[in-house]
Amino acid sequence: MPTPAILLYAASAHNADMLYFGRVNVPDAFIAIAHGKKKIAIVNALEFGRVKKDSAFNTVLPLEKYLTQAREKNPGQKVGAAEVIALVAREFGIKTFVIPDDFPAGLANRLTFLDVTLEVADGPIFPAREIKTPAEAAAIREGNRCSALGIAAAASVLRASKIVSGKIHYRGAPLTSERLKFAIETACLEAGALSIDTIAAGGDQACDPHERGTGPLRAHELIIVDVFPRVQATGYHGDMTRTFLKGRATDAQRKLVATVREAQKAALKKIRSGVNGRAVHQQCLDVFKKRGYETKSTPEGSIGFFHGTGHGLGLDIHEAPRVSIADNKLKAGSVVTVEPGLYYPGLGGCRIEDVVQVTATGAKLLSSAPYDWEIK
Amino acid sequence: MPTPAILLYAASAHNADMLYFGRVNVPDAFIAIAHGKKKIAIVNALEFGRVKKDSAFNTVLPLEKYLTQAREKNPGQKVGAAEVIALVAREFGIKTFVIPDDFPAGLANRLTFLDVTLEVADGPIFPAREIKTPAEAAAIREGNRCSALGIAAAASVLRASKIVSGKIHYRGAPLTSERLKFAIETACLEAGALSIDTIAAGGDQACDPHERGTGPLRAHELIIVDVFPRVQATGYHGDMTRTFLKGRATDAQRKLVATVREAQKAALKKIRSGVNGRAVHQQCLDVFKKRGYETKSTPEGSIGFFHGTGHGLGLDIHEAPRVSIADNKLKAGSVVTVEPGLYYPGLGGCRIEDVVQVTATGAKLLSSAPYDWEIK
Repeated sequence: MPTPAILLYAASAHNADMLYFGRVNVPDAFIAIAHGKKKIAIVNALEFGRVKKDSAFNTVLPLEKYLTQAREKNPGQKVGAAEVIALVAREFGIKTFVIPDDFPAGLANRLTFLDVTLEVADGPIFPAREIKTPAEAAAIREGNRCSALGIAAAASVLRASKIVSGKIHYRGAPLTSERLKFAIETACLEAGALSIDTIAAGGDQACDPHERGTGPLRAHELIIVDVFPRVQATGYHGDMTRTFLKGRATDAQRKLVATVREAQKAALKKIRSGVNGRAVHQQCLDVFKKRGYETKSTPEGSIGFFHGTGHGLGLDIHEAPRVSIADNKLKAGSVVTVEPGLYYPGLGGCRIEDVVQVTATGAKLLSSAPYDWEIK
Repeated sequence: MPTPAILLYAASAHNADMLYFGRVNVPDAFIAIAHGKKKIAIVNALEFGRVKKDSAFNTVLPLEKYLTQAREKNPGQKVGAAEVIALVAREFGIKTFVIPDDFPAGLANRLTFLDVTLEVADGPIFPAREIKTPAEAAAIREGNRCSALGIAAAASVLRASKIVSGKIHYRGAPLTSERLKFAIETACLEAGALSIDTIAAGGDQACDPHERGTGPLRAHELIIVDVFPRVQATGYHGDMTRTFLKGRATDAQRKLVATVREAQKAALKKIRSGVNGRAVHQQCLDVFKKRGYETKSTPEGSIGFFHGTGHGLGLDIHEAPRVSIADNKLKAGSVVTVEPGLYYPGLGGCRIEDVVQVTATGAKLLSSAPYDWEIK
């Protein structure tokens, strides 16, 4: 049986499957089809030249031509992507398309109405995305080089800061999360990567792992710095986290940080192809239990370790595979983050994150940055 | 008949409808429901605290609780968003959901299988998004303040540059599109906005309106600078374009720039509520025709004026309404770009873009930056 044709409708600027397939950044949704060895894009005049010149598509068709045909076929009616897809399907003799899970439901409805048969893919539309080629691993390593530059910029700012009555002062003004993020994001930009939703959160704010941080940062408190930039040239991401403290740490803070690092090392040691992601996650749970750190829900939110140990990283920041309670064997070539964390309001939050590629014998680090965290 | 319930499943970080509805930035897809006066979010532990504290949702439910219930109801089976939505629908007595056009088709299929009735919205799911409140107009004005800062940064770099044997040199090195974009993006970042896919393209590169620009910029050539940053605090965008030239312009370049500006002014003058966007677009076509600028397709791509005059601007960079050949009456309160352009390889490209809010009597500018373009 021949491989069924695949149909995508998305903006590659926002959709990793489309970028993976076409390798060209297009800001608005367009039609793409995989049909045998043909990689077809149907784009408007605004995109035509660039897509034809610089993409993985080997058949680039002008949208306007098909819209005109569709209007002639449906006089007086509104025509759009569905009518164009129906025309192209007929032209190439395609009866059935496989579509990704996130294909737009409205378009799917109209295609069904036009007698185009659609089947939602059972799992990812491009399963090969999970296994990174050497070029993809290098692109992720480059993303992490940018992450590390951002983290180094944050460390520099903290090192150059002074403590003034419990507050961190930088260049004569209170240091805010916003100022620290600006230093991080500028360093990423200069290296060619865009760091969106950068986290630089201190104290209790950092106990909400997705809180980006806002307002003045205080001395003697843990500050989580999580940097996941997108390399502009390739679309691949880095994703690294370090936890800092400006001033003097308490014994409880030191134990917290040491335990998170111990859990990360235990998880890294467990990783190799064939191992279940759940078993890697369990390593972190075991270390936290052994060291007396409890996880539970409270009316104000969860405390302890209440997220997964890691996630796949590539064109999406969160992609397959998961390293969590989910039952999921790790495959050679997949790239995952390893980022245990502990969060206790009052004491603070700590997360340490690196990125590895899974191999038959272990985990190959694709990220590198110091683990020093106490900054006097 | 009561308003039917609305169902969304998306990441508000990437989906403007979800951000509009919930007013909270969440990086991964989650379930949201509008049901009477209830605005329901179902989020995981990682997001729970932040969404509960700081969003427009008045009912925040823990995803994990419903996943556990779903697992109990479907022992041994994989459960996910569909099963959770089915449970919540039963709990709140919802039989039918209206979903947006871009709702994921895979999830829609599973919901249908679980006997949840879905209807794709006829048009936008939140038509009110097109009409901007004063607070939204202010947020867009702030976006354009950031755009203008980026454009001013580009002008400063060009002003500080020297011409060395036909090339533009900045701080002793050839000025590249990348360097110019870095100056623009840093200025936006400092102002609190993220400029993604910034365009700083010169010469023939600029004749492809979505080409971002790469490599050294040359003197005496038109350079298009298009900056559409997202204000991080609100999610609203700015979108402005200016065209510069470092060195001395030819008469043909001067006529091109003057004609684009003339077309922009003609379009701006035509705008008020009740006017068809097509009539505004026609103003630009008329000016270009009168001045002898032809639009046509060539095997290498289109030349002349081959994009719309403008588009709606808000939480998305491109949103309703269009100002183009499409038949579409402008409504009071909508916010649109006005950005005619002309592109002729060999001569160069020029685009000038501002943003206005449509009123009963005209177009209120929400953007402001000088139109000086020749930089000696």
